Amino acid sequence: MKITVNKSTLISALQIITPITDRSSSKPILSNFLLSTMEEGDGKSVEFSATDYEIAIKGRFDAKTEEAGTICISAKKVLEVCREFLADEVRITADDQLWVTLEGGSSRLRLPSMDTGLYPQMDMADLDNSFRIDVAALKDAIDLTIFATQTDETRKNLMGVNLRIDEHQQSHWTATDGHRLAQVHKPVADGKLESPPEIIIPRRSLVEMRKILERTEGPVSLSFDERSMKLSTESITLTTRLIEGKFPNVDPIIPKDSDKTLEINRERMVNALKIVSLMSSEQIKPVKLSLNPGTLRLESERAEYGDALDEIPVEYDGEPLQIGFNARYLLDVLLVATHGDTVKLEMKGPLNPCLVSMPNDPSFLAVVMPLRIEW
Amino acid sequence: MKITVNKSTLISALQIITPITDRSSSKPILSNFLLSTMEEGDGKSVEFSATDYEIAIKGRFDAKTEEAGTICISAKKVLEVCREFLADEVRITADDQLWVTLEGGSSRLRLPSMDTGLYPQMDMADLDNSFRIDVAALKDAIDLTIFATQTDETRKNLMGVNLRIDEHQQSHWTATDGHRLAQVHKPVADGKLESPPEIIIPRRSLVEMRKILERTEGPVSLSFDERSMKLSTESITLTTRLIEGKFPNVDPIIPKDSDKTLEINRERMVNALKIVSLMSSEQIKPVKLSLNPGTLRLESERAEYGDALDEIPVEYDGEPLQIGFNARYLLDVLLVATHGDTVKLEMKGPLNPCLVSMPNDPSFLAVVMPLRIEW
Repeated sequence: MKITVNKSTLISALQIITPITDRSSSKPILSNFLLSTMEEGDGKSVEFSATDYEIAIKGRFDAKTEEAGTICISAKKVLEVCREFLADEVRITADDQLWVTLEGGSSRLRLPSMDTGLYPQMDMADLDNSFRIDVAALKDAIDLTIFATQTDETRKNLMGVNLRIDEHQQSHWTATDGHRLAQVHKPVADGKLESPPEIIIPRRSLVEMRKILERTEGPVSLSFDERSMKLSTESITLTTRLIEGKFPNVDPIIPKDSDKTLEINRERMVNALKIVSLMSSEQIKPVKLSLNPGTLRLESERAEYGDALDEIPVEYDGEPLQIGFNARYLLDVLLVATHGDTVKLEMKGPLNPCLVSMPNDPSFLAVVMPLRIEW
Repeated sequence: MKITVNKSTLISALQIITPITDRSSSKPILSNFLLSTMEEGDGKSVEFSATDYEIAIKGRFDAKTEEAGTICISAKKVLEVCREFLADEVRITADDQLWVTLEGGSSRLRLPSMDTGLYPQMDMADLDNSFRIDVAALKDAIDLTIFATQTDETRKNLMGVNLRIDEHQQSHWTATDGHRLAQVHKPVADGKLESPPEIIIPRRSLVEMRKILERTEGPVSLSFDERSMKLSTESITLTTRLIEGKFPNVDPIIPKDSDKTLEINRERMVNALKIVSLMSSEQIKPVKLSLNPGTLRLESERAEYGDALDEIPVEYDGEPLQIGFNARYLLDVLLVATHGDTVKLEMKGPLNPCLVSMPNDPSFLAVVMPLRIEW
């Protein structure tokens, strides 16, 4: 192989794939990625790809190709080297003894590469069910739900976001860890759906998808079957295994009879929750909300290491309520519910969950379970 | 105590003292700082101070004082809390039971405080020898020498920067760890020097001084005796213990008979050294310099994990030379020798040290010992 590529383009590509090559210390071959000249078209592009068996990413970019070929080489090392090159172009040459030479300006490095035959195959075929979605909508769907996924391995089916497409071309995204729930729906287009499809996308895959979307404009397409999902943007494709198992029916958890409703300034509430959280070094940051006509009061428990309280004016003239929460769970919702200056809280009694929504965006809701407090 | 202070001012003060309060986990009292209303003048300022026995910092800022007093309270906790306050002003109140209340806007926190009598006394008196120095010159003196101090404890007298004032009102700053040496001189003013003064300022104290200088304009004054040094800026005073012991005479190490001289583009050389360093995961990053008429070539050893080389054009027409260095040591010098685009290297043979200087600034020199290489 003999190619010349733009340094920034190569760095961008490597930044997308290094997160999945980094983790694979138990299988050294997976710290590498593949770089191949393309035979189709005018032969002026190269394809890069990497997999960790769970997630596979493939993309292409322009290159000047003098000699076709494929190399399998450490993604991290090539990224480190390219970052230091002063020149704008990088020349990559491979010889028969698996030595790869990287040249940038007057700097020249030789790195060992691996036999490409040792690298796992990646199946990037289109899958049965497919739809298109606006890139901003997909980013939003991920941001508004991923925080509520479960991070420990006790219930694998909650370690991802549930995606369901309904007959009205709406995608429904839901996540819960038993303590809180987040749900958002977004319109899709060109939906071709074979069966009533419902899948669970692993949290980690969504994190990597989110990074790819950050560099993408225009609509993207998603296709999936029972076991895999594929995200296609103009220049990059990501496939991921799905989480097997059934996602719980969350409808019964969403409170329908809350009678205490208030809208509150999001930023003020975030700030008050952060201050109250400072008063607990535990994982759980208990906060007592006291709702009274005109004010919402937030308080930590009085303890030897101190206590905190804050009061936020609210338009509320209903019954008083005292209710406890893990401040962290309320914060997680409020930090992403950023469409508009206010959030809406709907509550009932001290043991009923709180419904959080955005007055400006009815497509989203979150539920936070209360915490029994005794002060 | 009852005072109202500007939030950003308080945060600035806390950022200066938390580095010395943070480290003191073995003596819990040292995680606190003192905040006192000032009796002198119009009573509209407060003094903050902290010590870890080695370093003591004291400063003052304006405040509205309603009731005089002193508190001793966790610096880290107060900083965390103030950062979250939305309001511009913070009201601090202490009661008889050692509870301190911090109020910012509608947020209110109560934190426990300590008996101020338990906090160590700080002696901030002026010391016998003193001089004034321009703040930019002092920052420069620290930056150009601190990298060459020894970081392990094998030779305590090398774990700081040697300061000597000569009879021509020049301050001489020298650091060495046996592998490299850095030396710079800067003019001082108003020097009152009792004895031929020479001290060793601990590296850590210089790091904290550097942070204070970053927020300082105008001249600062330094005073010292055999055991302590004091830095005074307009609003902040730092005193530190000095390192006891004798600093070695470094004059014999500075080569005087180098016959191979070249000037080289600093940025190109930094870049080449970084690239060659990538090829070694060891602490020592060996690099071979091959100097020939017209070019300087940098090479790593050929190894199974790869190799690197770079060539930089230089104006040189003397004898050829091959010499090895720890690339890290050359890099450390070149990263601070930033007065001008080029650096000057003076060498002799493969076992002679290299003299590094800045053509634009004759006040600085560095010496890097060679590394015996066998490739």
